[in-house]
Amino acid sequence: MDTDLGQLFLSELVGTAMLLLLGGGVVANVALTKTKGFSGGFLLVNFGWGLAVFAGVTVSYASGAHLNPAVSIAQLVLGNIDFVQFLVYVAAQLLGAFLGAVLVWLSYKNHFDEEPDPANKLGVFSTGPGIRNYGWNVVTEVIATFVLVFVIIGFGRGGDAELDVPAGLAALGAVPVALLVVGIGASLGGPTGYAINPARDLGPRIAHAVLPIRGKGGSDWGYSWVPVVGPLVGGVLAALASMALLPLS
Amino acid sequence: MDTDLGQLFLSELVGTAMLLLLGGGVVANVALTKTKGFSGGFLLVNFGWGLAVFAGVTVSYASGAHLNPAVSIAQLVLGNIDFVQFLVYVAAQLLGAFLGAVLVWLSYKNHFDEEPDPANKLGVFSTGPGIRNYGWNVVTEVIATFVLVFVIIGFGRGGDAELDVPAGLAALGAVPVALLVVGIGASLGGPTGYAINPARDLGPRIAHAVLPIRGKGGSDWGYSWVPVVGPLVGGVLAALASMALLPLS
Amino acid sequence: MDTDLGQLFLSELVGTAMLLLLGGGVVANVALTKTKGFSGGFLLVNFGWGLAVFAGVTVSYASGAHLNPAVSIAQLVLGNIDFVQFLVYVAAQLLGAFLGAVLVWLSYKNHFDEEPDPANKLGVFSTGPGIRNYGWNVVTEVIATFVLVFVIIGFGRGGDAELDVPAGLAALGAVPVALLVVGIGASLGGPTGYAINPARDLGPRIAHAVLPIRGKGGSDWGYSWVPVVGPLVGGVLAALASMALLPLS
Amino acid sequence: MDTDLGQLFLSELVGTAMLLLLGGGVVANVALTKTKGFSGGFLLVNFGWGLAVFAGVTVSYASGAHLNPAVSIAQLVLGNIDFVQFLVYVAAQLLGAFLGAVLVWLSYKNHFDEEPDPANKLGVFSTGPGIRNYGWNVVTEVIATFVLVFVIIGFGRGGDAELDVPAGLAALGAVPVALLVVGIGASLGGPTGYAINPARDLGPRIAHAVLPIRGKGGSDWGYSWVPVVGPLVGGVLAALASMALLPLS
Repeated sequence: MDTDLGQLFLSELVGTAMLLLLGGGVVANVALTKTKGFSGGFLLVNFGWGLAVFAGVTVSYASGAHLNPAVSIAQLVLGNIDFVQFLVYVAAQLLGAFLGAVLVWLSYKNHFDEEPDPANKLGVFSTGPGIRNYGWNVVTEVIATFVLVFVIIGFGRGGDAELDVPAGLAALGAVPVALLVVGIGASLGGPTGYAINPARDLGPRIAHAVLPIRGKGGSDWGYSWVPVVGPLVGGVLAALASMALLPLS
Repeated sequence: MDTDLGQLFLSELVGTAMLLLLGGGVVANVALTKTKGFSGGFLLVNFGWGLAVFAGVTVSYASGAHLNPAVSIAQLVLGNIDFVQFLVYVAAQLLGAFLGAVLVWLSYKNHFDEEPDPANKLGVFSTGPGIRNYGWNVVTEVIATFVLVFVIIGFGRGGDAELDVPAGLAALGAVPVALLVVGIGASLGGPTGYAINPARDLGPRIAHAVLPIRGKGGSDWGYSWVPVVGPLVGGVLAALASMALLPLS
Repeated sequence: MDTDLGQLFLSELVGTAMLLLLGGGVVANVALTKTKGFSGGFLLVNFGWGLAVFAGVTVSYASGAHLNPAVSIAQLVLGNIDFVQFLVYVAAQLLGAFLGAVLVWLSYKNHFDEEPDPANKLGVFSTGPGIRNYGWNVVTEVIATFVLVFVIIGFGRGGDAELDVPAGLAALGAVPVALLVVGIGASLGGPTGYAINPARDLGPRIAHAVLPIRGKGGSDWGYSWVPVVGPLVGGVLAALASMALLPLS
Repeated sequence: MDTDLGQLFLSELVGTAMLLLLGGGVVANVALTKTKGFSGGFLLVNFGWGLAVFAGVTVSYASGAHLNPAVSIAQLVLGNIDFVQFLVYVAAQLLGAFLGAVLVWLSYKNHFDEEPDPANKLGVFSTGPGIRNYGWNVVTEVIATFVLVFVIIGFGRGGDAELDVPAGLAALGAVPVALLVVGIGASLGGPTGYAINPARDLGPRIAHAVLPIRGKGGSDWGYSWVPVVGPLVGGVLAALASMALLPLS
C-alpha cells in the first residue's frame, strides 16, 4: 500500500458515498410512497445493495475499496495496513456513508416529504431488527459479517495457479463481491437487515438525525451500537479464522 | 477514435435501436394487457433494461457503444471525441432510439391495440415522474446519470496493473455496464423511472407522437425537457469529477 | 468445423436435451399444481430459460452449441457450415428437444398427474400467444429471434483487439448467451412466450402429442407453424444484417 | 490431488458449512415469521442457494470444492480421487453441513422461537416433496443431480483451446457453478426442493433432530433416504455419461 493517505481518504470517501447512495436508494425505492419500485420485494433490495457494492468498489480502486470498517479491521489484523491507515479508512468511510445518505435524501426528496410513516424514513438510512433482542441481533451481525470478510479474503487466494488466474477480484473486477453481498442479504439479512458494516449504518443514522427530514421520528440510538459492534467482531474473527482455514496456495 | 463518421453513425444507430427495442419491450411486457409478463415487478424491469444495455453495447463495439448523449458529452469534456463526432453520436442515438421504439410497437402491436389506458401506452415509450416536481425531478436525473457516467469512466481505470487486467469493460465485455444499469434502476429509478439518457427518452417520445397508436393520449411534452437536461448535466459533472476523483493508476 | 457428423449430432442432441429439460422444467415449476415454485413470476421463468441455455451450451462445446435451427440457418447463410451439416444440426436439435421434454415430464410426473388444467400441461411443452393473431405473432417471433442471432454473432466480433479479448463467448463461456436469453425473454417474451427456436417448440409439441400424459388436451397444431417460420426468418435476416452492420474489427 | 487428507477434510468442512449457512439461511429468511425476506418468492430462494454455492466453493479451493457426495462419487468413478479420499470428502461434507445448519439456527434464533409451524422449521434444515411419492421423488432427484454433476464436468472441458481459456471454473472462479445451481433450482426444484446433495440434506436433518429447537416437530426420517440415494445415483450416472458424451477437446 504505497498510496498516500490523502489519496486513500478520498478514494474510500467516494466509494462509500457511492455504496450508500445506491444502497440507501433501493430501500427508498421499495419503502417510500409513490415510487416506481414500491413493494418491489426483498430480492430487489438484495440486488440493489449488491450492485451498490459493485459500483462503490469500481470507483474506489485507488484505496483497495474496503468501504467497510469491518474489512479494514481485518486488514489491520492481517498486517496489510497499519493503525494510522486504519483510522483514515474508517474516517473516510463514515463521512462517505453520511454523504451518500444525504444524496439519497435529495434523490427521493419528494417521496420523503409525502411518506406518512416515520419508520419507513428511518429504514432508508439505518437498519433495525425484525425481532428486537440485542444479544441475538449481535450474533446475527457477527455471523453475517464473518461470512462477508472471510469470503472476501478467500477471493484473493486459491484460484488456479497453473492458469495464473486468481479466484476472484482481479479477473472479474467488482463482480464477485457484489454477488457475495446479494447472497448474504438473501440468506442472512432476515433478522437484522444485514448492516454488516459499521459505517453503512452509523453514517446514515447521523445523517437521519441532522437532516431536516419532514415528519421524521427518532433515530433509534438504542439499537445503533449493534451494527457497529457486531460487524467489527465478525471482521476480526474472519481475519483470525482465515489464517488457519484459507491456506495460501 | 479512427473510425470514420459513417461507421460511427451506423454503429451507434444499431446499438441504440437494440437498447430501446429491449428496454421499451420490458416495459410493454409488464404494463400492457394480456402479456406473459404482466405485472412482473420492478426487478423484471430493471433486468430488462440492464440486459438491453448488454445487447446494445455488444453490437455497437465499432463506435465504442456510447448509446447515450450523456456518455458522449462526457467523452467530449474529457477530450476523447471532438464536437463533430459528438453531433454524429447524438444524431445516431436519437434516430436509433426512435427506430427501437417503433420496433417495440410492432412487437407488441396486438397488446397496444387492446390496452385501454393511454398512460400505460406512453409509459412504454418515455419516462414520467412518480411525483411531478420538475426541479426535484431534474435533481434525481442529474444524480442518477452522474452515477452512470462516473462508474463507466471508472470501468476503464483501476483494474490490476500487475495482471494487466482492466477493471471492467474489456475483460468482461458488456457485463459490467449491464450490471450497473440494473443497479441504478433498482436504487435511483424510484422517483423518475431513470431516463438517464436524453436519446432514450426523447427519441421514443417523438415515436409516440407520430405513430398511429390506437387510442393513444398526449405525449407529455411538458415533462420532456427534464430527461434531456438532467442527464446532460449529470454527464458533464461526472466527467469533471472523474478528473479529480478517478486517478489513472 | 472439422468435427465429424456423428460427433456433431451427439453434441447438439445432448445440448438441446439439456436446454429443454431445464427450460421446460421452469415452466412446469411455475405452472403446475403443488410445486415449490408455483406462481413464481415471469422473471423466474426468464432466469430458468437463460440458465437452461447456459447449461446446454456448456455441454455442447464439441458442435459449437447451436441448439437452435435459427442459429444453424444463420451459420449456413454466413458460410460457416454446409447444407449437410445444417441438416444434421437440425435433426439433432429436434430429437434433443423431444428427449428433453420427455425428461421434464418424468421429473414432474406427479404434478402433471394432479394438474387439472390441460392448457397448463401444454404450456410446459410449447409456446402459445397471449393474443392469437398469426400474422403479428410471426412478427414478434421474427424480431425476437433476430435479436438473438444478431447479438450472438456480435459476441464473436468486436472485443478488444489490443488485449486479445473477444467480446464474449470465449472468455466468459456460456454466460453472455445466457444473459441475452434472459433479456430477450424479459423484453420480447410478452406476446408469444419467446419460442425463438423452432426445435424448442416443435420437438416438445411432438412429445406432448405422443406421451401418455394424464388428462391432456390438444397440442394446438394450428399455431405450431408460427414458432417455426418466425424464428427461421429472423435467423436469416440476422445473418444478412450482420454482414452490413457488424464489421469485423 | 497432492493435498494431504487433513487439509482436504478441513477445506471441505469449511466450504460445506458455508454452503449450508447461506443455503439454509435463505429458506429461514423466506419461511420464518417476522423476517425481512418473509414470503420473498422462489427466485429469492434460488439465488440464495446459488450464491451459497458461490461462497462455499470460493473458500474451499484447497480441496477442489466438491461440497457434495454426489460430486465426490463422480470423481471416484472418473478416477480422480481414490476411495480413502472419497470417505474423507464425505465425512467432512456431512460434518460441515451439520455445522452450517447449527449456524443458521443461531442466526435466526429469535425467529425459530416465535415461528408457530413446525413444518416451516424443518424446511429450513431439510427438503421434502411437494407430492409425496418416493419412487417419483427419487426420479426427480436423480435427474436434477445428473444435470448438476454432468454440467460441472462440462465446465472443465471444452472451452477455447486457441485462446487457452477453459469453459468455466478456472477463469470465472465460482460463478459458473453458482449460476448452474440457480438454474437447477428454478427448473427442477419444483417437485422435491432440489436436495441434489446427500450431505446438504442429511447433515442438517441430524442437526434438526438433536438441536433444542423450541416447538419443533419430527424430522421426517421416512423421506430422508430419498435425497441421499437419488443424488448418489445421479452423480454416478453423470460420471458414466460424461465418458461418452463430453469429449476431451
